[in-house]
Amino acid sequence: MTETADTRPGWFSAQELENIRGRMPVLYVQAVPVRVDDVGQVTHVGLLMRASPDGRFHRSVVSGRVLYHERVRDALLRHLEKDLGPVALPRIPSSPQPFTVAEYFPTPGVTPFHDPRQHAVALAYIVTVSGDCQPRQDALDLMWFTPEEAADARVLEEMNDGQDVLLRQALAYVGHAP
Amino acid sequence: MTETADTRPGWFSAQELENIRGRMPVLYVQAVPVRVDDVGQVTHVGLLMRASPDGRFHRSVVSGRVLYHERVRDALLRHLEKDLGPVALPRIPSSPQPFTVAEYFPTPGVTPFHDPRQHAVALAYIVTVSGDCQPRQDALDLMWFTPEEAADARVLEEMNDGQDVLLRQALAYVGHAP
Amino acid sequence: MTETADTRPGWFSAQELENIRGRMPVLYVQAVPVRVDDVGQVTHVGLLMRASPDGRFHRSVVSGRVLYHERVRDALLRHLEKDLGPVALPRIPSSPQPFTVAEYFPTPGVTPFHDPRQHAVALAYIVTVSGDCQPRQDALDLMWFTPEEAADARVLEEMNDGQDVLLRQALAYVGHAP
Amino acid sequence: MTETADTRPGWFSAQELENIRGRMPVLYVQAVPVRVDDVGQVTHVGLLMRASPDGRFHRSVVSGRVLYHERVRDALLRHLEKDLGPVALPRIPSSPQPFTVAEYFPTPGVTPFHDPRQHAVALAYIVTVSGDCQPRQDALDLMWFTPEEAADARVLEEMNDGQDVLLRQALAYVGHAP
Repeated sequence: MTETADTRPGWFSAQELENIRGRMPVLYVQAVPVRVDDVGQVTHVGLLMRASPDGRFHRSVVSGRVLYHERVRDALLRHLEKDLGPVALPRIPSSPQPFTVAEYFPTPGVTPFHDPRQHAVALAYIVTVSGDCQPRQDALDLMWFTPEEAADARVLEEMNDGQDVLLRQALAYVGHAP
Repeated sequence: MTETADTRPGWFSAQELENIRGRMPVLYVQAVPVRVDDVGQVTHVGLLMRASPDGRFHRSVVSGRVLYHERVRDALLRHLEKDLGPVALPRIPSSPQPFTVAEYFPTPGVTPFHDPRQHAVALAYIVTVSGDCQPRQDALDLMWFTPEEAADARVLEEMNDGQDVLLRQALAYVGHAP
Repeated sequence: MTETADTRPGWFSAQELENIRGRMPVLYVQAVPVRVDDVGQVTHVGLLMRASPDGRFHRSVVSGRVLYHERVRDALLRHLEKDLGPVALPRIPSSPQPFTVAEYFPTPGVTPFHDPRQHAVALAYIVTVSGDCQPRQDALDLMWFTPEEAADARVLEEMNDGQDVLLRQALAYVGHAP
Repeated sequence: MTETADTRPGWFSAQELENIRGRMPVLYVQAVPVRVDDVGQVTHVGLLMRASPDGRFHRSVVSGRVLYHERVRDALLRHLEKDLGPVALPRIPSSPQPFTVAEYFPTPGVTPFHDPRQHAVALAYIVTVSGDCQPRQDALDLMWFTPEEAADARVLEEMNDGQDVLLRQALAYVGHAP
């Protein structure tokens, strides 16, 4: 699962985090940014373009760790602002109920989700953003797709680690064909 | 279940509607209007004050029928604008999944919900409203309560037909003590 | 939306029902029957084979009207027993929250769902069945598919009226690739 | 949050776990065991009786950590079998979507949930159990309450750390008055 460096440094040394990641599940949040019309129907889904360590490009949703003593809704806002910039105006959902829980295993095939570095468990939410998005940090670009475009094989195959499945689960949840 | 007159007249005569109401379940939407902070946490719940036919007052959420060839999300917007005015700026949820389905039976005790006039099945949603609310039609007033105030017995006992249960289910859904 | 004749006759004459169907939304339940393993993971999805009025065959989930003074959970059980037989042992969900609400419009394109006869609004649930299924009435057969098989284009294209979308939304909801 | 010792020893030394607990959120599952009737309606809720370290008694739902490389559904089954015995026959939900996410903070008041030892984030599920329950390990007893009894102040005040709120959120989710 791609993520930028945590913005609050110093919770763990890189070494310590590495050690923990090999021994307990790490809690994440994931947000699928959407644009909606005036009756709440999703008109566009936002996907980040990032560079993989191997120099290839891929698309992804907003993802990141929940820190110690941080509420899930605060983690969502922090990662959305980190990836979409300070004026994206994300509307964090009022309910803590995620639309799904995506379990990323270091071993491929246990679930549709895979993360070679760790066992990550992500609470996944749909988040309407109404402001201007200016991708930051390691996100090179943000592109908006209609639900039909987002469900297209050419977009989905640019997503890694099962995020294509997560995106389609998100489309299903908002009433679109996945 | 309280509701104002439908704003699109002429679908059925009063006689016809009465006849149908005695013979098939009628589809409703219900919306619990909320104010949220910048991480989506509910800070206030809005309740309408209405006059009952017997001259007493009671509090209620936004309710109304879904009309023929009307989408659930369009019905939600229509009833919210009808009860809260044209500049309430309700944010209709992006997902069609309601937080609950409230079944109002003409016979008390079948479910926690009761409607002496009909068998109504209501899809219930939490709706954030960010604009100014100006109650209209038969809604005399709209008052905002903190989640703690809304869960208080004095508020709950001013609600009829099981809407106190619906309100508490809504509070539970947004992570508050019901 | 395909359904068998209602098992409780006499609520409306055919003429009356036809008249109402042209003027108000009709409440339905839909159930996607599944088999699960001992940790609840869906291993198979059950689809009915039916004959269309035009003599062709198509696959469908369990569907039917909610009757006057019938609870949603009673309607679910009634339609599951009607289509899967008396020893299917369906486990009706404990929560009234459906995984989605599918809105079938007589006009194609308003939503992904279409019903030329009526405006039907269906509360959709996943229902585990643990017993023997013996399709009855107009259901010619019940076939079990793995989630991968069910998501295959050849199966999906045998479904009408947007039920392929509903099936994929169901797969998404239970954590599978839709 | 009360829990018995993990049944798979040796993942961390007590010292290491203590160290991590002070620095990152720990992922939990919580299950509210229920009995249902033949249409899925909850008739009883099961609560464990445990002894607190201070020698007092309290009631609780089933809780426990998710281990490294363990799926959420496997963790649910493991903790249910640990607390309710091997023949409880729990029916793990088919969907990974929890009914809520309960965030237990070491600082009281951040959320309704509190855990003095750690920051725990619990995915909460309703789990129907159809077999015989034989509480084991540190659970002294399991008692079944009707939804009305479970919502009674005398039962709720025997629950610690906000589990009374979780129980009422569970009742709300299954359509009962919380």
